[in-house]
Amino acid sequence: QAQQPVISPSPYFTYGKGLGIISPDSLFMLNIRFRMQNRLAFVSESESNLDIKSVEARTRRLRLRFDGFIYTTRLTYLIQLAFSRADMDYDDTGFPNVIRDAMIQYSVNEHFSIGLGQTKLPGNRQRVNSSGDLQLPDRSIVNSTFNIDRDFGVQFYYNNALQGLNYVLRAAISSGDGRNITSSDRGLAYTGRLELLPFGKFTNGGDYFEGDLAREPKPKVSFGITYSNNQNAIRTGGQLGKFLYASRDIQTNMADFLLKYNGWSFAAEYLRRTAANPITTNEDGDQRFVYVGHGQNFQGSYLFKNNFEVVGRYSQVRPDNDIQTLEEKIQQYTVGVTKYIRGHRLKLQSDLTYEENTWLAGSAANHNNWQLRFQIEAGI
Amino acid sequence: QAQQPVISPSPYFTYGKGLGIISPDSLFMLNIRFRMQNRLAFVSESESNLDIKSVEARTRRLRLRFDGFIYTTRLTYLIQLAFSRADMDYDDTGFPNVIRDAMIQYSVNEHFSIGLGQTKLPGNRQRVNSSGDLQLPDRSIVNSTFNIDRDFGVQFYYNNALQGLNYVLRAAISSGDGRNITSSDRGLAYTGRLELLPFGKFTNGGDYFEGDLAREPKPKVSFGITYSNNQNAIRTGGQLGKFLYASRDIQTNMADFLLKYNGWSFAAEYLRRTAANPITTNEDGDQRFVYVGHGQNFQGSYLFKNNFEVVGRYSQVRPDNDIQTLEEKIQQYTVGVTKYIRGHRLKLQSDLTYEENTWLAGSAANHNNWQLRFQIEAGI
Amino acid sequence: QAQQPVISPSPYFTYGKGLGIISPDSLFMLNIRFRMQNRLAFVSESESNLDIKSVEARTRRLRLRFDGFIYTTRLTYLIQLAFSRADMDYDDTGFPNVIRDAMIQYSVNEHFSIGLGQTKLPGNRQRVNSSGDLQLPDRSIVNSTFNIDRDFGVQFYYNNALQGLNYVLRAAISSGDGRNITSSDRGLAYTGRLELLPFGKFTNGGDYFEGDLAREPKPKVSFGITYSNNQNAIRTGGQLGKFLYASRDIQTNMADFLLKYNGWSFAAEYLRRTAANPITTNEDGDQRFVYVGHGQNFQGSYLFKNNFEVVGRYSQVRPDNDIQTLEEKIQQYTVGVTKYIRGHRLKLQSDLTYEENTWLAGSAANHNNWQLRFQIEAGI
Repeated sequence: QAQQPVISPSPYFTYGKGLGIISPDSLFMLNIRFRMQNRLAFVSESESNLDIKSVEARTRRLRLRFDGFIYTTRLTYLIQLAFSRADMDYDDTGFPNVIRDAMIQYSVNEHFSIGLGQTKLPGNRQRVNSSGDLQLPDRSIVNSTFNIDRDFGVQFYYNNALQGLNYVLRAAISSGDGRNITSSDRGLAYTGRLELLPFGKFTNGGDYFEGDLAREPKPKVSFGITYSNNQNAIRTGGQLGKFLYASRDIQTNMADFLLKYNGWSFAAEYLRRTAANPITTNEDGDQRFVYVGHGQNFQGSYLFKNNFEVVGRYSQVRPDNDIQTLEEKIQQYTVGVTKYIRGHRLKLQSDLTYEENTWLAGSAANHNNWQLRFQIEAGI
Repeated sequence: QAQQPVISPSPYFTYGKGLGIISPDSLFMLNIRFRMQNRLAFVSESESNLDIKSVEARTRRLRLRFDGFIYTTRLTYLIQLAFSRADMDYDDTGFPNVIRDAMIQYSVNEHFSIGLGQTKLPGNRQRVNSSGDLQLPDRSIVNSTFNIDRDFGVQFYYNNALQGLNYVLRAAISSGDGRNITSSDRGLAYTGRLELLPFGKFTNGGDYFEGDLAREPKPKVSFGITYSNNQNAIRTGGQLGKFLYASRDIQTNMADFLLKYNGWSFAAEYLRRTAANPITTNEDGDQRFVYVGHGQNFQGSYLFKNNFEVVGRYSQVRPDNDIQTLEEKIQQYTVGVTKYIRGHRLKLQSDLTYEENTWLAGSAANHNNWQLRFQIEAGI
Repeated sequence: QAQQPVISPSPYFTYGKGLGIISPDSLFMLNIRFRMQNRLAFVSESESNLDIKSVEARTRRLRLRFDGFIYTTRLTYLIQLAFSRADMDYDDTGFPNVIRDAMIQYSVNEHFSIGLGQTKLPGNRQRVNSSGDLQLPDRSIVNSTFNIDRDFGVQFYYNNALQGLNYVLRAAISSGDGRNITSSDRGLAYTGRLELLPFGKFTNGGDYFEGDLAREPKPKVSFGITYSNNQNAIRTGGQLGKFLYASRDIQTNMADFLLKYNGWSFAAEYLRRTAANPITTNEDGDQRFVYVGHGQNFQGSYLFKNNFEVVGRYSQVRPDNDIQTLEEKIQQYTVGVTKYIRGHRLKLQSDLTYEENTWLAGSAANHNNWQLRFQIEAGI
């Protein structure tokens, strides 16, 4: 039954981040964004044999994003869909996790908002930074080993200033089992985060993108700490990883520091995960375990006037005693160059990493290698 | 090879349901919609032990929808994509069913249209109602147990009036195996439905959304009956469910009734599924069976002036003798409250259910529990 | 934290292929397209028993496509997502391949461009033609057996004319393992293609859609040849098919010819795949093999003034000696009719095929059948 549509005035448009369309009666805003990262990467056979051992030729990320408001600008939504194989976490979970973000948020006032849905937990800064706002082709191994990722639940956000000291408080109560879980037991995850910005807010929200693209005229600093307690976690990384053979309580402590000034940026993170009795076993004797241990990441960069940036990074992850025969200590030394063509939306990135894998226990052989990556990121 | 695009006049826009864009030469209309349902739900250990047994914290539905016309307003299309895990039917089928609707329809005249593609069959009213137009967080157990869902095939739609008696005739010939099936045998499904509207059409199509949001000034009634014959069905629910170990012929009878008046709404449904020899067995002795039996759903509501609605529901599903040692009789008593902020597009919903599970045969223990749900639905 | 959006002037719009939206500062173009193919097809029990053996009732393809430019019209992107089960290659690969195209291209000048990402390799013409630009409901069995599909890598495109002889050179270095592969060994795929257009370019790019919809006023011809060398291929068809039990080097040779004039179109293709030792075996004795052999496709059509087209096709695929006890020689004789309502964007298609399956070795029985297809394609 064909319906004759009712024609209305043109909408309003915005282009700041994506294509935004606002209905003329302001009943809703629909902002459309996409981005993709196309990557070529090579790993050498060893530190001395530079033959190529493996090639990573793939679209690492490809995302569609819809955000905006409905009914009132206080009620905002965020939908992000991920279509690349790695983004779907298919190989870990055995099902396609297309939904990354599905969040509905209400701003009670300019300081306080509350949300229900699936999105990132308030974890370490590098994780909360969008993967589209990184200064190297990807996050560090510290992040990939210890981050608390996304989860479904209730989230609280509060920011204010106390005698000139800006601070942010964030908290979440979530299922603890990660994205797109059908049903959970009663063991939930409780996460809290505090950020202090002693010299005031960063320009254009610069505490949540990498590199000093805003070329801060005055030094800006942020300290952040996060604590998360994931009860009855069923996956090796809590919200991430393969499914354990038995549930475990997992605690995560995080601390991070960021300084930006005049094109310079320096960031440091310390992440630590603990769990009692981290190794689980099934009837066949197979083992799956919580990666307990800690890691540090240090990252510094300078942005030249021509929008070339040079970046250095040192990362280390170190397993605790319980799992030192199962996991190596890994250290990475990285130098990278990024050319920002249109900020983080369109950029060319390359980095070279020397990786050391060291067994802290057992008799397995240590091994080192070189890694070279090249990446184009494009989006709106 | 960069192409210089040809610039054209601005399109026409509509905002009634989603964001509609019509090319100035009327060659096509593209209407974009999305919606999501974020849910927190809790099930108690038993009727007397109110400890939480399981938590459902997830995005239950997240849909993108594109509809409009091509070339002529008589030729319409409907595409709906579903990205949540439950919507993909992944756990039942073992593959991701992203496509929900993919329909091309032609309106021969104002009374008659014909379509080819995948969409809902003309089954029970609660199923044909969009999941975005429900007055409780989800449909009843009667629907989930007996509905005939979506299928791919040819569909016919006819509506007219006979001496003031409005009626709708719908029919479908479809594969019978549900969404996104690669290939079928020659056993198809044949479905027919008749609706009678003795007091005229509902305001704004109100016979296909729940709750009397239109506050009908005069009583409106619809009677509907459906018969479906699914030959050589290969799934436990015909178009739904896990795959049987052998095919079966499935018959489904449905009858429904709807009354709306002045904020009040009352709906009743009776669904019945039959199949000869419903249990199938594989070589290992595993059983999969057609759920044969019947169910009733009764639902009543009143919408207050402040757009709060109170809803009551009683649902019962009862297995036939063949499977009474495999499936319990289930009864649910539900009360719910919904606050419509922007009609069905933006609403808050909560309901509380007492569930009785009763074995009609065998010696397994009966068990009852409480269920509490909270849900936000947002979309355009 | 609700943000007040900055309102900007209206964008520019294009409607040539999809809905194109260009930001007023020309910082980006976003062009949105979709299309779907809804199909009903029937295969007979045999050549003499016309009872229906199987029914194909499904949405064969459903695609979303985003393309445009970012920052400069020289830098273009192409994203294509596929949501139908067959398009996901789920049954072959065991994971959902939603991403079809994810390409970023830079036009160095009007002749030369370079790209990084995932898209079709420069293979045979029928494969490089969009599946939305076919004159029969689907491509030939020659194409499905021997094509080199999509891959991730670097692609080069060059076109020019030499004393009036138009030519196109294309080359690609790619992973060789097909869409959405996580990691590859160092054995890559190298592909090159040359096209010669002795009578000049086709109208509206008509060398890359089927049927002479442009009704070329003068005869136009294109010759194409492709060579591809896929080292350490891990799938039965190189970029396609199930995973082999051991890697193989695969070589593919292709030649194609196209003539269009005054509503007439004639196309021919020859494809040949070779691999040393094509059969691989696992520990259980299961076999998976590279389909080595060759095939020819001949296709002719005439487009009447009322935009009905009649099409004839003959296709043959013939396995090499190595696998003649595993694969039959197949021949198909097809006649089809297509009604173009709005060019290739909206069309009705039907074809009837007689298929002969002939064993070249072994004692299995030959078998023949009839195939009838009906398809609606709609998109913008």
